[in-house]
Amino acid sequence: MTEKSSGWVVSVSVSPPSLNDNTADADRLINELKSVLKTGYIDVDLLLLKNIPWRLRECEYQVRCVCFKDRGRWKLVGIKKKDDSGVCTGIAVDLGTTRVVLRLIDLETGEAVGETAFDNPQIEIGPDILERIHFAVDEDGLNKINRLIIDGFNENIFSLCQKSNVNIKDVYLLAVSGNTSMSHLFLGLSPNHIIREPYIPVVNTFNTVLANDLGIRINETGRVFVFPNVGSYFGGDLISGIIYSRLHVQDEISILVDVGTNAEVVLGNKDWLVACAGAAGPALEGGVSKIGMNAKPGVIDTIVIDPETGEFDLHTIEELPPKGICGSGMIDMMAQLFLSGMVDIRGKFVPSKCGDRLKESDGIRRIALVPAEESATGKELSISQVDIDSLIRSKAAMYTILETIARYVGVTFDDFSRFYIAGTFGSFIKPESAISIGMIPDLSEDTYQSLGNSSLGGATMVLTSREALDEVEPIRDRITYLELNVNQEFMNRFSAAKFLPHTDPSLFPSVKLIAS
Amino acid sequence: MTEKSSGWVVSVSVSPPSLNDNTADADRLINELKSVLKTGYIDVDLLLLKNIPWRLRECEYQVRCVCFKDRGRWKLVGIKKKDDSGVCTGIAVDLGTTRVVLRLIDLETGEAVGETAFDNPQIEIGPDILERIHFAVDEDGLNKINRLIIDGFNENIFSLCQKSNVNIKDVYLLAVSGNTSMSHLFLGLSPNHIIREPYIPVVNTFNTVLANDLGIRINETGRVFVFPNVGSYFGGDLISGIIYSRLHVQDEISILVDVGTNAEVVLGNKDWLVACAGAAGPALEGGVSKIGMNAKPGVIDTIVIDPETGEFDLHTIEELPPKGICGSGMIDMMAQLFLSGMVDIRGKFVPSKCGDRLKESDGIRRIALVPAEESATGKELSISQVDIDSLIRSKAAMYTILETIARYVGVTFDDFSRFYIAGTFGSFIKPESAISIGMIPDLSEDTYQSLGNSSLGGATMVLTSREALDEVEPIRDRITYLELNVNQEFMNRFSAAKFLPHTDPSLFPSVKLIAS
Repeated sequence: MTEKSSGWVVSVSVSPPSLNDNTADADRLINELKSVLKTGYIDVDLLLLKNIPWRLRECEYQVRCVCFKDRGRWKLVGIKKKDDSGVCTGIAVDLGTTRVVLRLIDLETGEAVGETAFDNPQIEIGPDILERIHFAVDEDGLNKINRLIIDGFNENIFSLCQKSNVNIKDVYLLAVSGNTSMSHLFLGLSPNHIIREPYIPVVNTFNTVLANDLGIRINETGRVFVFPNVGSYFGGDLISGIIYSRLHVQDEISILVDVGTNAEVVLGNKDWLVACAGAAGPALEGGVSKIGMNAKPGVIDTIVIDPETGEFDLHTIEELPPKGICGSGMIDMMAQLFLSGMVDIRGKFVPSKCGDRLKESDGIRRIALVPAEESATGKELSISQVDIDSLIRSKAAMYTILETIARYVGVTFDDFSRFYIAGTFGSFIKPESAISIGMIPDLSEDTYQSLGNSSLGGATMVLTSREALDEVEPIRDRITYLELNVNQEFMNRFSAAKFLPHTDPSLFPSVKLIAS
Repeated sequence: MTEKSSGWVVSVSVSPPSLNDNTADADRLINELKSVLKTGYIDVDLLLLKNIPWRLRECEYQVRCVCFKDRGRWKLVGIKKKDDSGVCTGIAVDLGTTRVVLRLIDLETGEAVGETAFDNPQIEIGPDILERIHFAVDEDGLNKINRLIIDGFNENIFSLCQKSNVNIKDVYLLAVSGNTSMSHLFLGLSPNHIIREPYIPVVNTFNTVLANDLGIRINETGRVFVFPNVGSYFGGDLISGIIYSRLHVQDEISILVDVGTNAEVVLGNKDWLVACAGAAGPALEGGVSKIGMNAKPGVIDTIVIDPETGEFDLHTIEELPPKGICGSGMIDMMAQLFLSGMVDIRGKFVPSKCGDRLKESDGIRRIALVPAEESATGKELSISQVDIDSLIRSKAAMYTILETIARYVGVTFDDFSRFYIAGTFGSFIKPESAISIGMIPDLSEDTYQSLGNSSLGGATMVLTSREALDEVEPIRDRITYLELNVNQEFMNRFSAAKFLPHTDPSLFPSVKLIAS
């Protein structure tokens, strides 16, 4: 019992009613749970309440109860026979703008029993958040876009359960980690004011909701937890990421960076947490270059340029014929072009070094990575001066944001004991390349740590540990959100960071050109 | 603001969002309410949450909010423009087995703005609770009987609002006071185990429920509060009655009696509360005699017998031709028959005193009250020896219950500072008649106080005062419920009480026969 009562499933034996103890059915069960959970109050929804009398008798008063906390208050979510062979499960969800990942978790063992991912069906409205928010401007649009994601959940929960041999009625909890806009669209809340000055969400901390009320088909009394946001530009996925990184419990100062369309940054330790978010540019997610794309098979993720011969050694994911380049591939390429002298400190092509890879049309220079005959698309894959300028602006923004937040709290980069990089981007990026172009500070390589899908990781923790859920609201409340004022000081720093690696090379002592 | 914040409607001015204060819409409103209500947490349902952004803007951030408490936790129930001419209302409900009374209340002024009553539509299943519970044995039956009462609510709320010129969308709260079975059937909870040993309800304390979830059409985010029960035979209507009587805050000991099919009794003061319930017999509600009926126009409520002439002076409600007799009329008649010597101490007819009113058929004697030609039914109205025997059993049970509870707590009847009688029965009963037959203790007449519809009164209080709502759970928790063991001691007392007024006439010193 002790072991089982540490998670969200509690086994109890309820004494049957008698003339000497005619406590009501629900009260009898709740009293038992209260004593195990050491709490004074446990809430039960009407729908579950209706089932309690026959469930108790059917189970012969030996039950496993799924209990969860809603804003600190215990809630009975489901009742199962103690010796029923079915599992009690929950689904951790990374609700991304582009991809949604579902991980099915056995709530009693804490183990993942299945996982699936699908493209966010709202992409049919628009690949980026802005288009979707504009679409959701009225009730019809909001309902339609909400329906898309809910239908996506239902289809994929169904198939995930099928392939994992889990009855869909045995899914009692969902823990959903997404950015503020995605969470709003998921809950059917209007995201209108998120993108309009002064940029405010409907609400920051959500109560748990009956899955039924959202149209999600799991157990009929199952509930959905959505991570709270700090504000419009700092969402629940970041809170989830912090939980996963454990940054908030460490003595030393760490930084967590999540790079997407925006760069979101949290700096802190067990005593304080400061966060900011800023447009670091889509270049970092492969969104700017004509051949930029998300990391997937056939996408260039590594480039090595031979300093002697100028030969390009390209690597693609799963080693398929190249069809594009991802964000970390872009950074790698930029680093190699710079280190080999093919672009100068301003990021401009150096024709004498580029050789016949350098081409020009309509007055715009480009460097060919893959000739048409070797690419998967049948077209030449190349990077233009425009792509490079855009990437430099993104990396400069990233560095400036890091500088700004560090200065705000009065620390230097050397004070960072850990530099966590979240998400797919974090999984592919090579820190030395990002350092070479001056995108991230020149720290020792072991300071950098890729978290992988920290949004999913945090959601998983909330479904497997009471302590993790209890951390959510305090973390949210502890965060000081720093509004990035794009003032003269910021612009000065930004200008200085628009060079490779920086106008002040002493900031990047490890960066040495490999070609003379 | 101070005045308005004492009830359930709170007026607040919310500062509009700005770049300097981009708190989320809901949080902005909730923070304002928290400071007025001096609470750390206010819950909002998803449906209302969805409306907050546009409601705030439409109202130009000047709003009246309906807030209510759910198990001690504040809940935002509705939002209205501050200078909107519409009222914020709630409906207090006495959910009786036979009659349902709805009282429409302006939540800001606390005043009743309308009232209506209707027969409980579940009567079509059966006039008494047992038949209805048997009908609700399966899900279909339960759903059907639940639907009947919900439809009854909807029709009558609609017409009540219409005649009171109140928009149905301006109804935000329902406070429902009923016995345990009625509350269960209203909420769709199975009453199966209430009538089967060991006689237990599904649950004793109900959370508030969205009216929508019950199928009740008021404001779409309006909520329903149902008074908690102590157990199967001591329901929310009694808790409501206690609140209305104020018995629970007095220094002196009072007793509250509600007479229906069961007699329910609460004895106590500000320090303790003891309750019991027992079958006092339907005779007291006019349910046994062939001509017995509930108090309504044309029903005999008063009888005076001239001790000299033996003339009967009958009074009917609204002075219409007589069609039956109500419970208090029965008691009056019994008292008069006894005091005039027409029945003896055992309750048997004394032929020499009755004269030619006494008739007999099939070996059963009866006394004619109204000849066929004077009655509204065209049939003779008479009371038989069987009716009288039944009434005597009821009055004896009532007296025995009162004796038992007083002895249990170690007090005598003289310690009662107040004897409250609830319900319609309480409004019509004449204490001196009830004393004359030994149904209630021989206390001075001013000790007796009729409460009228205390169930409706308590429900009204809960909608007009925060303090009253806060009293509900503590009262429920304070009540010690005394199971009436029908043991030898009880039977001995019952036998002694089956005489008029009692085998021990010294208990009723004020009762003097008027005829020699």
